[in-house]
Amino acid sequence: MDTSIFKLKKLVPKAALLMAVAAGTALQGCSKTEGGSNASSEAVASDAASAVYVAPGKHDELYSFLSGGFNGQVSVYGLPSGRLLKIIPVFTQHGENGWGYSEESKAMLMTSHGFVPWDDLHHPKLSRTDGQTDGRWLFVNGNNTPRVARIDLKTFETVEIMELPNSAGNHCSPYPTNNNEYVIAGTRFSVPLDMKGGTKDVSLDKYEEEFRGSISFIKVDPEHGDMDLDFQILVPGFDYDLANGGKGPSEDWVFFTTYNSEKAGTLKEVGASQNDRDYLAAVNWKLAAKYAKEGKAREMPANYYHNKMDENSHVAKSTVKKKVRYLLPEECPGMMYLLPAPKSPHGIDVDPTGEYMVVSGKLASAIPVFSFAKMQDAIKNKQFDGEKNGIPVLKYESVLKGEVKEPGLGPLHTEFDGKGNAYTSMFVSSEIVKWKLNDLSVVDRMPVYYSVGHLMIPGGDTKEPHGKYLVAMNKITKDRYLPTGPELAHSAQLIDISGEKMKMLLDFPTVAEPHYAQAILASKVAPNSTKFFKLDANNHPHAVKKEADATVVRESKNRVRVKMTAIRSHMTPDNIEGIQEGDTVYFHVTNLEQDWDVPHGFAVMGANTAETLIMPGATQTLKWVAKKAGVYPFYCTDFCSALHQEMQGYIRVSPKGSNVPIKFSTGKKKQNIPGVASTK
Amino acid sequence: MDTSIFKLKKLVPKAALLMAVAAGTALQGCSKTEGGSNASSEAVASDAASAVYVAPGKHDELYSFLSGGFNGQVSVYGLPSGRLLKIIPVFTQHGENGWGYSEESKAMLMTSHGFVPWDDLHHPKLSRTDGQTDGRWLFVNGNNTPRVARIDLKTFETVEIMELPNSAGNHCSPYPTNNNEYVIAGTRFSVPLDMKGGTKDVSLDKYEEEFRGSISFIKVDPEHGDMDLDFQILVPGFDYDLANGGKGPSEDWVFFTTYNSEKAGTLKEVGASQNDRDYLAAVNWKLAAKYAKEGKAREMPANYYHNKMDENSHVAKSTVKKKVRYLLPEECPGMMYLLPAPKSPHGIDVDPTGEYMVVSGKLASAIPVFSFAKMQDAIKNKQFDGEKNGIPVLKYESVLKGEVKEPGLGPLHTEFDGKGNAYTSMFVSSEIVKWKLNDLSVVDRMPVYYSVGHLMIPGGDTKEPHGKYLVAMNKITKDRYLPTGPELAHSAQLIDISGEKMKMLLDFPTVAEPHYAQAILASKVAPNSTKFFKLDANNHPHAVKKEADATVVRESKNRVRVKMTAIRSHMTPDNIEGIQEGDTVYFHVTNLEQDWDVPHGFAVMGANTAETLIMPGATQTLKWVAKKAGVYPFYCTDFCSALHQEMQGYIRVSPKGSNVPIKFSTGKKKQNIPGVASTK
Repeated sequence: MDTSIFKLKKLVPKAALLMAVAAGTALQGCSKTEGGSNASSEAVASDAASAVYVAPGKHDELYSFLSGGFNGQVSVYGLPSGRLLKIIPVFTQHGENGWGYSEESKAMLMTSHGFVPWDDLHHPKLSRTDGQTDGRWLFVNGNNTPRVARIDLKTFETVEIMELPNSAGNHCSPYPTNNNEYVIAGTRFSVPLDMKGGTKDVSLDKYEEEFRGSISFIKVDPEHGDMDLDFQILVPGFDYDLANGGKGPSEDWVFFTTYNSEKAGTLKEVGASQNDRDYLAAVNWKLAAKYAKEGKAREMPANYYHNKMDENSHVAKSTVKKKVRYLLPEECPGMMYLLPAPKSPHGIDVDPTGEYMVVSGKLASAIPVFSFAKMQDAIKNKQFDGEKNGIPVLKYESVLKGEVKEPGLGPLHTEFDGKGNAYTSMFVSSEIVKWKLNDLSVVDRMPVYYSVGHLMIPGGDTKEPHGKYLVAMNKITKDRYLPTGPELAHSAQLIDISGEKMKMLLDFPTVAEPHYAQAILASKVAPNSTKFFKLDANNHPHAVKKEADATVVRESKNRVRVKMTAIRSHMTPDNIEGIQEGDTVYFHVTNLEQDWDVPHGFAVMGANTAETLIMPGATQTLKWVAKKAGVYPFYCTDFCSALHQEMQGYIRVSPKGSNVPIKFSTGKKKQNIPGVASTK
Repeated sequence: MDTSIFKLKKLVPKAALLMAVAAGTALQGCSKTEGGSNASSEAVASDAASAVYVAPGKHDELYSFLSGGFNGQVSVYGLPSGRLLKIIPVFTQHGENGWGYSEESKAMLMTSHGFVPWDDLHHPKLSRTDGQTDGRWLFVNGNNTPRVARIDLKTFETVEIMELPNSAGNHCSPYPTNNNEYVIAGTRFSVPLDMKGGTKDVSLDKYEEEFRGSISFIKVDPEHGDMDLDFQILVPGFDYDLANGGKGPSEDWVFFTTYNSEKAGTLKEVGASQNDRDYLAAVNWKLAAKYAKEGKAREMPANYYHNKMDENSHVAKSTVKKKVRYLLPEECPGMMYLLPAPKSPHGIDVDPTGEYMVVSGKLASAIPVFSFAKMQDAIKNKQFDGEKNGIPVLKYESVLKGEVKEPGLGPLHTEFDGKGNAYTSMFVSSEIVKWKLNDLSVVDRMPVYYSVGHLMIPGGDTKEPHGKYLVAMNKITKDRYLPTGPELAHSAQLIDISGEKMKMLLDFPTVAEPHYAQAILASKVAPNSTKFFKLDANNHPHAVKKEADATVVRESKNRVRVKMTAIRSHMTPDNIEGIQEGDTVYFHVTNLEQDWDVPHGFAVMGANTAETLIMPGATQTLKWVAKKAGVYPFYCTDFCSALHQEMQGYIRVSPKGSNVPIKFSTGKKKQNIPGVASTK
């Protein structure tokens, strides 16, 4: 059976199609009606307006978490309004709140390659309880310098980042099992692994012989969420693209799309598009965990960072791990199978019942739907089509439920509404196609603008979708909004999928490039949201909890610590003298407020670092090098009160070797402190 | 006449008011009806929904440019939808597009204090022609490390950043005159100036004797917009808060609010709130320019950076300036006057006719409206009330048109609708108050949530306001949106001011903290928007304009330049060998596309820098240090085509001293290049 794109002759001329694929251009000929199958009209627009309008003082129904793509962050949009509620910094420095700049947070961005201030974040995945989103954590991947991060949804802060060894391009990541037993992360790019750790210095011509992939199995502590890399499976040198976990009957399995089964090491655009079929890899993770536990795992040297933010001090710490365990599929029978999948597959999506695996081949014309029950039978009956690198390949027909015929051009991803329908994004023909899981018939189409990548239905990848809305994340924006020069926002579209026919509701621009999203009912998250940090619980080593304890200490020859408090509308101390040229001054600022939404900011002129934004009850540190004698102001940077503009002070720097003693204001008086003292 | 807050007894009990001011809490007792004076109803909500809804495929009517406050950027929101169209990086590194990280842009963030990766951006001001916004440039200030930047509205990019000497806390900035003859910037904090350059090392107890402020006059090239610091005026050691330029009859003047006329150097919260009156400073900028030109200006040493982005190479260059000219008010008769202004004034706003100057004293109960005509008479008739630091103080009554009585609590800022009405934000009572310029009577009130700071009417600070909408920028958010942990977005509100009564339309969250905004009709900006850069015009020193010219050159012992091209869907070269441990590799990537909205991104594993996002026709550089022998992937980070996932390559690093020659793929073959070569 030929599922390649070349079978689409009936739909569009081959030459046009090839051109479109090559240029990545959208063919928008399939449907012309903007606003969906209903005729566009004032009434429809007014309905849509009301459907997305969240009146002042009212709240959105859902949180959606969109990956920031090349901004390395997560953006939180309310639905249905499409309003940006927050950017959560994860892998990239964020000047707005000092993430990755402050003394407290910079360890979060440490890796085996040193300090890495940026990554490319692709896939957010909410934590799960019994296969449903539980609103506790959000797991996300860093693509470029392979890492997985965990965001705590009580505070909307990144609390943990773990580097992944033996990985290169952590795209196929992170996929939690139904109770977060594991978060699973596959390498996108294969590399020549050095079994003594890291990658090998080999000729790039040796791709086929030397390059390997890996899949990481990260354990998650069920109570606190802490991650730990349990083991890896070393897999053939394909590219691993996306993954999806089983549900119900397929609960023990996780599925991965692969491309470049050709093992091309150069010119992948052509070289990795030769085979009519690549593979869907099926891995029994429970069996893998059993093998790992029962002694099948070997150990190899490694070097990777694991960074955690302490919840009371808000100080991040790194630990460096030096070993990793791994399994080889050829040594673990029954653990891994390959299913032939259409040319260069991208998305793999398992339906809410766990019976159907939908594979979208971006260069294929039909969408194959595999049956988990048939896969189990085929394994039992050994319906194999040979093996690849020691891994049995199942016969295509033996696992196939059927194919969605002529769904559109360039199918990429599928989500589900929990009512028996699947929705697939079509990159080339720029549309969302709705089809029925039972008979695989196409029942509706909605044009989207332009070139949709991922799509998302809240819970649409879980056992219980909330099938009211669908968000299309489009790759090309062009004329959808007012132009902003050559660099444009990306564009998402919100579609009502509650009825038989899809209805277009809203275009909303998104920061950077959302590759995927997750959404959850607000009622599962909002009630647990932390309003401020308790000052009593603050155990930052340099916190001061009352103004009278504020102090300035010369800790060593060139190091001064200012332990400062901030409360409306003053900082204590606000006059500091006795600093010398060449001193490194640490301003440890504790926000004494114990109320919601009263952060203070702290800045000092000429600082070579970023914002210090201090939440109520917390302590944050700004490092400042006194370069030149003179007087420099500091001030609160977050408008906090009617007298915010007066919330200001000065630091005086004297020449090296001068006799100006340390002197600082506390309340109404200034104290003289001996020139050198230590808190230790 | 006592205009202090203590006269408000009739409105609220003094104790409650003081508590509110001290705590910065909103008193929301003035009006209870959310949604304005109209009763809230489904019909009103539906009207509002339709009023702000921009249907898919349609464009917003206005661009609004909101300052990012402590994120150091400008955010562009469409109005009336409230959708975030773009974040324009200015003073802060921006991982999303490599601003401040890339080799091309990092010079933009150089200052006399070294590389400064962050600032606090407060006030955007659009360039003007004949007192109206002209859609050419946007000027913005950096507060913390005093700088002014210019954004080009053809490309929505920051093209120029100039440091300001003798300034400390550049808050009172930047204010363009009616034809951008000057952009004017006042210091917020005074500092002890060293007339040999920089600040002096003096005791902070010497505030009154030693500390001075400065006002900078920056010339703007009428054709290209390039800035140049022409001269400064050294002014008394107050705090300079905000400024506003005259119009029509007052065209030659610019006005500044001051606080801390008490010259308190510590505990400003109390110390700077002693006097019942501070000052409005009036400066005749045309006369100042004449004095400067005609030899009244002295010169002093200085040290400040002026950074410009070249429009063809997109490479930024810094120049360091070593001198600055200054005027002293006491030597320049007629140039500067002080007008007594209510206790700790914040906003100064001149109405569209140029006759009325409205001063909002944040601790005052009434809003005085000064008359420019009366001011001219008072100067002529020498109606002085003594002098301060050699500057004549005009008699309050001699310049007063009248006072807006009991307008609300904590007046901060005023804008105008061009139909004879003024709108003032009330921080403490959390409302917008509409009043008539002719009889100063209050005609409407709209509660806003919570604690409004600035407000903005498109063109509301120019000769021709577009009086349809008003945006309230609120300082406190609390429960307005779904909670996102302790750190919340700020909240703006869009109000319809086209009728007699204000109508609340929309709440929309904003990134970081907008202090002020400007808005302009889309028709003045959109038609000139650049869609892509012309490859022909690209004169980046390391650009390559066709794949055949792509090359890898070992330029010196430890430096390798990769001159690479990117076009859908491959990079040339995509295999690179012959790199050694310790090499610094510069990847110069030229995007060969010549179409709208086809950026490519570039990342390499373990890079200690950020995204390289390359617009069509441009070249950007990623610097990468080869630390350890092995094989590292690189890839396109911006989904560009159906075969984007295949747009990938590898770089091989060999041990130091190894004999692997430079080798790279170009098209279908790999070339061997001699081990050391030079392009020079």
